[in-house]
Amino acid sequence: MWHTSPMSELISRHQTGAPQNLEERFALRAAGMQPSEIRSLFAVASRPEIVSLAGGMPNLSALPMDMMASVVSDLILTNGAEALQYGSGQGHPLLREQICDVMALEGIRANPDDIIVTTGSQQALDLISRIFIDPGDVVLVEAPSYVGALGTFHQYEAQVVHVELDEQGLVPQALRDAIVGVRAAGKKIKFLYLIPNYQNPTGALLPADRRTEILEICREAGIFVVEDNPYGLLGFDRPSPNAMRAEDSENVIYLGTFSKTIAPGLRVGWALVPPSLKEKLVIASESSILCPSNFAQLTISRYLADQPWRDQIASFCDLYKVRRDAMLESLEEYFPASATWTKPGGGFYVWVNLPPEIDTKLMVPKAIVAKVAYVPGTAFYADGFGTWAMRLSFCHPTPERIRDGVKALGGVVKQEIARRSSAFEIKS
Amino acid sequence: MWHTSPMSELISRHQTGAPQNLEERFALRAAGMQPSEIRSLFAVASRPEIVSLAGGMPNLSALPMDMMASVVSDLILTNGAEALQYGSGQGHPLLREQICDVMALEGIRANPDDIIVTTGSQQALDLISRIFIDPGDVVLVEAPSYVGALGTFHQYEAQVVHVELDEQGLVPQALRDAIVGVRAAGKKIKFLYLIPNYQNPTGALLPADRRTEILEICREAGIFVVEDNPYGLLGFDRPSPNAMRAEDSENVIYLGTFSKTIAPGLRVGWALVPPSLKEKLVIASESSILCPSNFAQLTISRYLADQPWRDQIASFCDLYKVRRDAMLESLEEYFPASATWTKPGGGFYVWVNLPPEIDTKLMVPKAIVAKVAYVPGTAFYADGFGTWAMRLSFCHPTPERIRDGVKALGGVVKQEIARRSSAFEIKS
Repeated sequence: MWHTSPMSELISRHQTGAPQNLEERFALRAAGMQPSEIRSLFAVASRPEIVSLAGGMPNLSALPMDMMASVVSDLILTNGAEALQYGSGQGHPLLREQICDVMALEGIRANPDDIIVTTGSQQALDLISRIFIDPGDVVLVEAPSYVGALGTFHQYEAQVVHVELDEQGLVPQALRDAIVGVRAAGKKIKFLYLIPNYQNPTGALLPADRRTEILEICREAGIFVVEDNPYGLLGFDRPSPNAMRAEDSENVIYLGTFSKTIAPGLRVGWALVPPSLKEKLVIASESSILCPSNFAQLTISRYLADQPWRDQIASFCDLYKVRRDAMLESLEEYFPASATWTKPGGGFYVWVNLPPEIDTKLMVPKAIVAKVAYVPGTAFYADGFGTWAMRLSFCHPTPERIRDGVKALGGVVKQEIARRSSAFEIKS
Repeated sequence: MWHTSPMSELISRHQTGAPQNLEERFALRAAGMQPSEIRSLFAVASRPEIVSLAGGMPNLSALPMDMMASVVSDLILTNGAEALQYGSGQGHPLLREQICDVMALEGIRANPDDIIVTTGSQQALDLISRIFIDPGDVVLVEAPSYVGALGTFHQYEAQVVHVELDEQGLVPQALRDAIVGVRAAGKKIKFLYLIPNYQNPTGALLPADRRTEILEICREAGIFVVEDNPYGLLGFDRPSPNAMRAEDSENVIYLGTFSKTIAPGLRVGWALVPPSLKEKLVIASESSILCPSNFAQLTISRYLADQPWRDQIASFCDLYKVRRDAMLESLEEYFPASATWTKPGGGFYVWVNLPPEIDTKLMVPKAIVAKVAYVPGTAFYADGFGTWAMRLSFCHPTPERIRDGVKALGGVVKQEIARRSSAFEIKS
């Protein structure tokens, strides 16, 4: 009988050392790799009958496809052997030079040798996390912050600490307080991650004087600034202030991307870093993807060299400005007086605050029934905060669809407020 | 005076918590991110006057560029809005179906839902490491093994344990012994990583019976098998045995790539995994790159749908076979009798063993002077082993250049042997 007893089985397994179940075979960090609420939402939001104010997909209708086809075709015909071959781990030297021209529009003077081309700026976030974050290290982020960045920091087992943000972006005094508080608790702060231009998810624009103050605080405290700038060239009303990196080349890690100014399907972004960080980032990237795609990089390089890319960005701005206006007008028209929202001067997003008794995550199914989708505020916090808020994106649908969607969503919100207050009345 | 003493400075820094130097600001894993010997070698090897037998760049001269240009141009004109947009984190559903057709050539029956498209198979290695490896965990690999895989395992702080390989690939009894030895030392084994077809760097082909035996050993021991198969369709003399995944869908993680069968500049590879692993890998990939490039994926999808891709692979095989033959013939002609080498039936590489007193790393500069480059054997071991060996790749140069290169290298080797033996005579 002894050989069938559970205990002896356990011992025998222990002796062979074979793992007993799948969970035990994963790395510790894998425990946190759970599907997010936003993932299932996007599956629903992509149905054609739903007006999606959820996604951040750029609107490519202003991009002339015949021009793109001829750029790519010429590239293969004249330089196919290079475009289809492995390339440099750091990225193609020619593209890195052209990236310097793009960044010059925001006041940055850079050396192409300090640029690492990445598979979208998401990969840059991953690589920076990889070289800096040990489990338990603190990363400071705006409150709220970009969901994709939070996911990456989480995967490297960072402790994310949110720092207050208002309509003018990150609040410097709150940053000072956070640094003191975190360090008093004996934690290491690895960097401050922020999006100074038309922030995701709030649309906030950080003014020049706050940029300077935040740079000083971080320099003084020995904390790197990770400046994520996907939307800087998408200011509708006036140009954005100079990039933070323009003012500080020693302590700022700057992330850029062509996803919003050309097209995201190419997956080309970059990091511009202090020279002391470059080597480790290149090694980390080679370990992660060997090298970025020459095919995509040289397509962008040709496009930048031969096409009027500044005009193209201006066309994108026109297209998004009309949509931003449609959203702000219809929010005014259809949302209740108790709601407030940001008025972004660029980018893709409006952040809406509802009365605190509303739970936007619980409200999602009702919105879907009303054929409109948004992202609930909690997605942009590491700590469950933001239940009363929502992110609305105006980048992708037509202005008419945006109006329809905001109207429908306004109806859902009003009903929800009425339901809550009547429930409150019954209780009291 | 007290405020200038080093001790009080230290205390004051400790109080503010500001890091004292850059090294302290990095994550622990970053300490191992050091440039490899192979990196500086490749910079030299790319000079036109050098015959490079070092790199593993596929030869794209058999790929008709006008055809590729028209595939890409058609894609943008007819489906540009999708090709240039963000896509699914798991990879495009259509391409995942076509990948099943490609894998069917090696006996694999797969569900497209179990495939994750990656930025080259390097990214698959990264993701697998991410979900499995805690610092100190053991990964078993062939001795020698692919340098890029070793780099990734190292970055995740795995302990790499090499398992004996002979001309027939991994030796099953050595695998059994390694498992017992590692577990006796109290270590966790996370997976066995191997390249069964035309292995990098040796060119060894694992016969069918060993495949079955290794699968049994790993299943029994509860160790996943990571089957990396970039060269499986590049058998010159006869088709490769069925993939190991064809025989075991529960315990094998299969890695494929289009880098060698179409073109590496597209950076499209994939992992076919047991269903229980898929979700975590997709989440890890989204955190790492958000999504693979639709542009590259749909280019490949069109190519597979509209072009005679099997014939194209046959053309690649013809091209490489001539080069393999040129290399083996010239090794016979120009290398000393004391050298031995593998005779690969496919792939890109020959592995050369020299007399043990030769240090191929120290010999590199002499080879460069003789205008030929190779990769020294130590690059393929995690432990400094392999000083007497070298990897020669025959994939890229013309047969004439291969002969010139092997001739020049044979001269360097003979000189080195003569120098060593005369030094030995003087000493004795």
